[in-house]
Amino acid sequence: MRETEIIEQIRRQTLGSHRDPTLIRGIGDDCAIIRPRAKEDLVFTSDFVLEDRHFTLQTHSPAAIGEKALARSLSDLAAMGAEPVFCLVSLAVPANLGGAFVKRFYQGLLRTAKCHAISLAGGDLSRFDKVIADVTCCGRVPRGKALLRSGAKVGHHIYVTGKLGAAAHALSAGKPILPNPRISAGVALRKLGISAAIDISDGLSLDLARLCDASKVSAAIASSSLPLSRRATLDEALHGGEDYELLFTAPPKIKIPANMPQIGIITRQKPRHSVFLDGHPLQSKGFDHFA
Amino acid sequence: MRETEIIEQIRRQTLGSHRDPTLIRGIGDDCAIIRPRAKEDLVFTSDFVLEDRHFTLQTHSPAAIGEKALARSLSDLAAMGAEPVFCLVSLAVPANLGGAFVKRFYQGLLRTAKCHAISLAGGDLSRFDKVIADVTCCGRVPRGKALLRSGAKVGHHIYVTGKLGAAAHALSAGKPILPNPRISAGVALRKLGISAAIDISDGLSLDLARLCDASKVSAAIASSSLPLSRRATLDEALHGGEDYELLFTAPPKIKIPANMPQIGIITRQKPRHSVFLDGHPLQSKGFDHFA
Repeated sequence: MRETEIIEQIRRQTLGSHRDPTLIRGIGDDCAIIRPRAKEDLVFTSDFVLEDRHFTLQTHSPAAIGEKALARSLSDLAAMGAEPVFCLVSLAVPANLGGAFVKRFYQGLLRTAKCHAISLAGGDLSRFDKVIADVTCCGRVPRGKALLRSGAKVGHHIYVTGKLGAAAHALSAGKPILPNPRISAGVALRKLGISAAIDISDGLSLDLARLCDASKVSAAIASSSLPLSRRATLDEALHGGEDYELLFTAPPKIKIPANMPQIGIITRQKPRHSVFLDGHPLQSKGFDHFA
Repeated sequence: MRETEIIEQIRRQTLGSHRDPTLIRGIGDDCAIIRPRAKEDLVFTSDFVLEDRHFTLQTHSPAAIGEKALARSLSDLAAMGAEPVFCLVSLAVPANLGGAFVKRFYQGLLRTAKCHAISLAGGDLSRFDKVIADVTCCGRVPRGKALLRSGAKVGHHIYVTGKLGAAAHALSAGKPILPNPRISAGVALRKLGISAAIDISDGLSLDLARLCDASKVSAAIASSSLPLSRRATLDEALHGGEDYELLFTAPPKIKIPANMPQIGIITRQKPRHSVFLDGHPLQSKGFDHFA
């Protein structure tokens, strides 16, 4: 199958899928064209999924790789409280996998795209000796309303959108993990007027430290308040990556849905550590690509 | 060097570089934030550069890889007649290359960014066993004014923005190729009101066929009119990839700059072939990743 034929196959796969009204031109030219609406900000993020790093061909089907590739990037939109608009997908695959692999990758990706009403607008296709994908997502928020890491203030309560440690526990059992981006939770929280958010892709300990650093505050959390996934250990809930829940802060006066438990409180910035668990400094042991 | 330190290093490297006024928030949150201007369309493209496919560590310095990664993607903006706005850069490198490689990659990339007034807004950083980068570029055009592949009409003259075959010739001599994106030419041609454009990244024969297919026309070109680079053969000019000149069409009444030679004319669509050289069908031998 030639490159032109594979691209035509992808274009046909997108027919009938969600098309954002601001997407003027999708696959088929040198660039996609977007006509932004007035009074909106657009937010952008890119995320890799790499063979033998984020998945293996043994643990993940081509469709599961496509789902995961888009979901990782969507999770960053969720953390900004953004509604999905469009994505660009750069995909490289070994020649021997060819058009059949690409077709099934996009079946999975477009299934996730449909769930979250995001349009596939373009990308790149190449040959490589491993499967690699980079997905860029664009989302929209009302002007000036994006949730930021830097919005946490002393006295704010700290919450998470769901149970923690499931992904780390599944990983230790050799099972594939499918991130479930919390797009609708992010949008709902933005409308409630919460202050700060980040997605927990690299583990609560590391991502909470990042939120504290960006906001120039510290955080006190209680182990008894942490919502552990079934069978997950405290260590998995604290440091396990790929949970893709949102971590956020809000002033006490804002009423947060009951299924999003409070896990702690924002305090004044301490000199050497930003996160304290049950009163003791908590080292970030989350996922660091270069540690 | 930890991931957080490397990202902080990249953020520091961007200080003092070009910052587009619509970029509200760059590196440091889950997403970059853009506040689009009224009456503009935004165009988007993504392009991979992959080790041992688009470059090797022997032929390209880290800075040259960074320059090439951005330039490939910028060339797609040029083909739309767009002015650069921002880019997202996903980069993965082997652990042993580490922070020093990343720093030099971004020195090269930011040098090219400065030339074309594009802001580095964010991206991803990962570890992998080869060096791979995917660059997403965003550009702006006045509403409805993007140059398209589909705008060519019968009777239009066909032009190129410069000499052809240089990249293929350099490649055959084992020399690295640094694409020079034709951003200013693209913007100037858009303002002249030309009809259709594409960048010649995969070779004139293949990219002209793509433009013809998108426009539902054919093209007649003359070998005597082709502007050959010094020492390049006709075959290199016709089929060599990575030239990154623009190929465009315009009605005869539009006066095109003298340094952009006419190479042929657009004709009615023929049944089996879209490109004819000196009256004979020309097979596309350009770069096809999966051929």
